[in-house]
Amino acid sequence: MSLKVKLNLNILNPISQPNLVRLLLVGFGVVGQSLVKLLLSRSTDLHKLYGVNPRVVACIDSHGSAVSTAGLDLQRLLEAKRLLGSVGGYDRSKPNYELPSLIEKADAEIVVELTPTNIDSGEPGISNIVASLKSGKHVITVNKGPLALAFPSLLELANYNDVKLRFSGTVGGGTPILEFAKRSLKGDNILSFRGILNGTTNYILSKMEQGLEFNDAFNDAKLNGYAEASSLLDIDGFDAAAKLVIMANWIMGMKVTIKDVYRRGIGDINLTDVKRANKAGKAIKLIGKCENRRLCVEPTELSNTDPICVNGTLNAVTFCSQHSGDHTIIGQGAGGSPTASAVLRDLIDIRTALLL
Amino acid sequence: MSLKVKLNLNILNPISQPNLVRLLLVGFGVVGQSLVKLLLSRSTDLHKLYGVNPRVVACIDSHGSAVSTAGLDLQRLLEAKRLLGSVGGYDRSKPNYELPSLIEKADAEIVVELTPTNIDSGEPGISNIVASLKSGKHVITVNKGPLALAFPSLLELANYNDVKLRFSGTVGGGTPILEFAKRSLKGDNILSFRGILNGTTNYILSKMEQGLEFNDAFNDAKLNGYAEASSLLDIDGFDAAAKLVIMANWIMGMKVTIKDVYRRGIGDINLTDVKRANKAGKAIKLIGKCENRRLCVEPTELSNTDPICVNGTLNAVTFCSQHSGDHTIIGQGAGGSPTASAVLRDLIDIRTALLL
Repeated sequence: MSLKVKLNLNILNPISQPNLVRLLLVGFGVVGQSLVKLLLSRSTDLHKLYGVNPRVVACIDSHGSAVSTAGLDLQRLLEAKRLLGSVGGYDRSKPNYELPSLIEKADAEIVVELTPTNIDSGEPGISNIVASLKSGKHVITVNKGPLALAFPSLLELANYNDVKLRFSGTVGGGTPILEFAKRSLKGDNILSFRGILNGTTNYILSKMEQGLEFNDAFNDAKLNGYAEASSLLDIDGFDAAAKLVIMANWIMGMKVTIKDVYRRGIGDINLTDVKRANKAGKAIKLIGKCENRRLCVEPTELSNTDPICVNGTLNAVTFCSQHSGDHTIIGQGAGGSPTASAVLRDLIDIRTALLL
Repeated sequence: MSLKVKLNLNILNPISQPNLVRLLLVGFGVVGQSLVKLLLSRSTDLHKLYGVNPRVVACIDSHGSAVSTAGLDLQRLLEAKRLLGSVGGYDRSKPNYELPSLIEKADAEIVVELTPTNIDSGEPGISNIVASLKSGKHVITVNKGPLALAFPSLLELANYNDVKLRFSGTVGGGTPILEFAKRSLKGDNILSFRGILNGTTNYILSKMEQGLEFNDAFNDAKLNGYAEASSLLDIDGFDAAAKLVIMANWIMGMKVTIKDVYRRGIGDINLTDVKRANKAGKAIKLIGKCENRRLCVEPTELSNTDPICVNGTLNAVTFCSQHSGDHTIIGQGAGGSPTASAVLRDLIDIRTALLL
């Protein structure tokens, strides 16, 4: 009996669990569900290796919410979403919270913002992030919209409120492009960078190299789940531009938004262009680049021997550094599980920073 | 007058300069001289960005030594080496120290071990590193020999003496392959990795793809400064095997030495093999890999579309991770200035670790 009481006290009293990190998940789509699955499978090694003990105390999607200070049962949360279409079905005896009040009231240290990217207004991401930062909560987001439109002011707001804003998953999905530039190249100066930042357009251009016309390549991408009807954001270069903005702010210390990017998509690339480039040992790629602190996204002919000249849905970035030359990093730029692993990286990063 | 006295006191009293890091350089060849040039050009930004104020208090090469507790004049040190062939000419009024007594007696926190790689005995590197660790000094080395032969015991000795052993520059030159795996992929599990770890053999194989016979390609590499008469260490795969051992110990937590690597070099690759692979859209590369915790270096046929299938003197490694897929990093694998920048990275890393 006394043991049971002690255990219960442990759960309710975070002071006796110094590694406890309480999370509020805002949005519960592919990445959110992948994150919860990762938390389920990795709880032991996260604690053992990084001293982090994450607990999801609240979760909200577009149809409802689930809240438990003691921590939600993650398996049940996934079931509610799968069977009932919303986390609101987790416990129908409890009231449904709304945004932003759940953000303000939730007993969480970190808000994980996972709503869909909106490149026009940034909403609902911007409001969610602002509410979180203002209420003294750290934010991890995989949503490019808010950062593309308002990176400098969001980072300033985070600093003002003395909380962290992290966004590994916004660039490169699970490929740690931002970390590589910030951490692995620590001690060097990055002078410029350029790369393939969008997997959908790279897949389409790769298919065109194989002989498909633009529309057929686009349809092939849709069939294989690499593009959606709404993929004009990819085709027109907005997605690459958003990532470029995030990199420019975070890596180069620039204070820019998507308005500062010269942008041209791949919509006017035809098979003749692609074939002509191919004959010359080159390939047309949608390249985002930061050179002389100017930002540009446009179709560019690359030599086939250029390390960033990769095919399929791969992303690739070359950083030109002052002292140690060019460094290229290549990986899958999207996917639920990889992007969820980027959220975990941010979580460990915030935890480590706070322990410093 | 009082200002001058105060300044002098500052220099002599490290307590009043908490960011001071005193270095002993053992070996003063290409990397050592590049390091000193980097220190000269970057003293301000190293202090500003990383709170590190490095001071070289002693330097020894195969012909002599230079020592100054107040810090050596780095320009004069370079001049002595250039004009007189040894740092022993820096101040002839002072006695010449010998190893290992200089290591034991020098008033330095960090020994930078830069002697040439010897893959048979590991000497003089092993003795220098052991003496440094035993006398309570941190070690930064770019020397693969000691680590290839005795990584587990050297790391144990460092831990036992509560000092750091760092070796960024031993793998990938200035390309932060070890950091990428350890830091940027933090939060994920690396299951296996494979890559091109030796630039000389990659240059030779790339030249063979252009139609040169092995011996002509080897001579071309010598002419261009990418190979030396002693390059059998490269050709026979010892250099790649040494790097593989370092990666396996540091990244995968294995306790292995170069004896644990299955190794086959490129000496028996002929032009016919290369041409046949080329016709099939492939290229023969000397690949080092760690799969199922088994280590192997051997010529391998890669698809031309494999991200690690890079040409010239480039190095490239793909890490296969459990949660975020494959990640590839590509960069120059050698060079004085890039390797010196890796030493600086280690210096910042040790400094940061000690402040934790």
